[in-house]
Amino acid sequence: MTRRTALAVDLGGTKLAVAVIDEEGTLLWRAQQPIEGNSADSCAREIARLAAQAAAATGSMPVAAGCLVPGIVREDGAAWAPNLWGREFQPLGEALRRRLPWPVLVENDRAGHLLGESWKGAARGARDAVFIAVGTGIGAGIMAGGRLLSGARGIAGSVGWMCLSEAWREEYAAAGCYEWQAAGPALARLARESGREGDAAAVTAAARAGEPWAIAIVERVAAIHGRAVANLVSLLDPEVVVLGGGAFADADLFLEPIRREMLKWAQPVSAAAVRITASELGAAAGLFGAARLALWPQEFE
Amino acid sequence: MTRRTALAVDLGGTKLAVAVIDEEGTLLWRAQQPIEGNSADSCAREIARLAAQAAAATGSMPVAAGCLVPGIVREDGAAWAPNLWGREFQPLGEALRRRLPWPVLVENDRAGHLLGESWKGAARGARDAVFIAVGTGIGAGIMAGGRLLSGARGIAGSVGWMCLSEAWREEYAAAGCYEWQAAGPALARLARESGREGDAAAVTAAARAGEPWAIAIVERVAAIHGRAVANLVSLLDPEVVVLGGGAFADADLFLEPIRREMLKWAQPVSAAAVRITASELGAAAGLFGAARLALWPQEFE
Repeated sequence: MTRRTALAVDLGGTKLAVAVIDEEGTLLWRAQQPIEGNSADSCAREIARLAAQAAAATGSMPVAAGCLVPGIVREDGAAWAPNLWGREFQPLGEALRRRLPWPVLVENDRAGHLLGESWKGAARGARDAVFIAVGTGIGAGIMAGGRLLSGARGIAGSVGWMCLSEAWREEYAAAGCYEWQAAGPALARLARESGREGDAAAVTAAARAGEPWAIAIVERVAAIHGRAVANLVSLLDPEVVVLGGGAFADADLFLEPIRREMLKWAQPVSAAAVRITASELGAAAGLFGAARLALWPQEFE
Repeated sequence: MTRRTALAVDLGGTKLAVAVIDEEGTLLWRAQQPIEGNSADSCAREIARLAAQAAAATGSMPVAAGCLVPGIVREDGAAWAPNLWGREFQPLGEALRRRLPWPVLVENDRAGHLLGESWKGAARGARDAVFIAVGTGIGAGIMAGGRLLSGARGIAGSVGWMCLSEAWREEYAAAGCYEWQAAGPALARLARESGREGDAAAVTAAARAGEPWAIAIVERVAAIHGRAVANLVSLLDPEVVVLGGGAFADADLFLEPIRREMLKWAQPVSAAAVRITASELGAAAGLFGAARLALWPQEFE
């Protein structure tokens, strides 16, 4: 019997990844290119171009296409993606349906990464799971009882806005307390405050090399992540929390201090049972999530 | 056509309430009595006694019974209810099924209050809603996309354990940071620290009478609730957050400062749209929730 396949699309802020993945989770074809957004329609055109290549290369006819967007997605497939086409909703689902011969499902990237990790990655088989993406910002994809949590306006999981401090600061207004304190740019800022230069990767590299100033920064930021994870654990009682995103490339440095801090604060039964782990699929999580969405759409409506 | 009815049971830590409620939400009969727990079986016996009275008084034959418990409920109906029968799971569902001639559904009280308020109370019709119960402890019932959020171990919504501060204190180990800072006993503690005597009700009464020390305590505790509500709003993107429980009998004093503080911290789109309101049903919320569970069980499995 031929396996069903999906066209998986991960539309990022600066690059576009497209793949063909079958229902067993085998990646049959994959391509990536830079993208400049401009509009949903220009993105759809690029996606359609890669989709034609994919179909020709694999000789397969996907049953549907799943497309992730870095932003907010409404039920009709309209998407708000400020890094791609400014601060308004554009009809991405509609544009894709015009250009692709398959049913199209559009979802936000945080939910997509969670779907990928809970299908073929670090949260395999989990029905209650959280994926925290830490990059220049912080967001979460949440699965509760096997269903995606989306909220009344499709923006559930905006964990970057989590309050973890008593005193409010002006800086929180743009991005949220947790995000300002612990996303990628926070490591660079803390390095500057210690009289050093370098981005998040430079700080974690220095910590790995044993430099005390960098180790201190990693522990300080890990403790903040630990308190945020604690809140997700107490609130959602998940089986597993997966940490991913660009700023977690060095997740192994963070995991133990995060777990230690989480255990101090969270509901004890949930805290003792939950697994805290790093992303297994990395950047591919989105493609697997998009494929899963396309292959079993009724599970995630 | 005769309306279907349910036997609604709200088993609290010190009292037992039983009602007959029909599918339109009409309360046909209601009784309440003190209860001493001892065991799930002794509770089931008392419930069956009131159920017989209810059936005789209303001449109705409920289609099912819904029973709330202050604790944790497993899928098989076993319940952990330390205020009633110590720190182990006892087979409450089984005990009730032995003594009642109807199908029996058991759920935790926080979820039950949420179901009541979202059926006939302050969250009427909402599919994404949070009920925060503030009494001697703090817990939440959460509905996401029309479904109860229960978590991998049935203890989702343990919001009393939410971290809202940077520094951990020994006192948080027993009850959680948010609960220690803002549940009923916190008001009494803060009063003592201001050289006053009295419980939560005395503090809110003094605040209502315009006493500055009491107003200061109410505002301080409301700000803590506001930050906790902010986290629930950012994370869950609900339509409405309902505040209830014994310590919120004077919710009107708290609502405005809670909303003000929430707006500072939470994801701005969710924060601007969410409704923050007081329980409409009060102590009856549990009975309506238990009835709803019994009348439409398939919606909440």
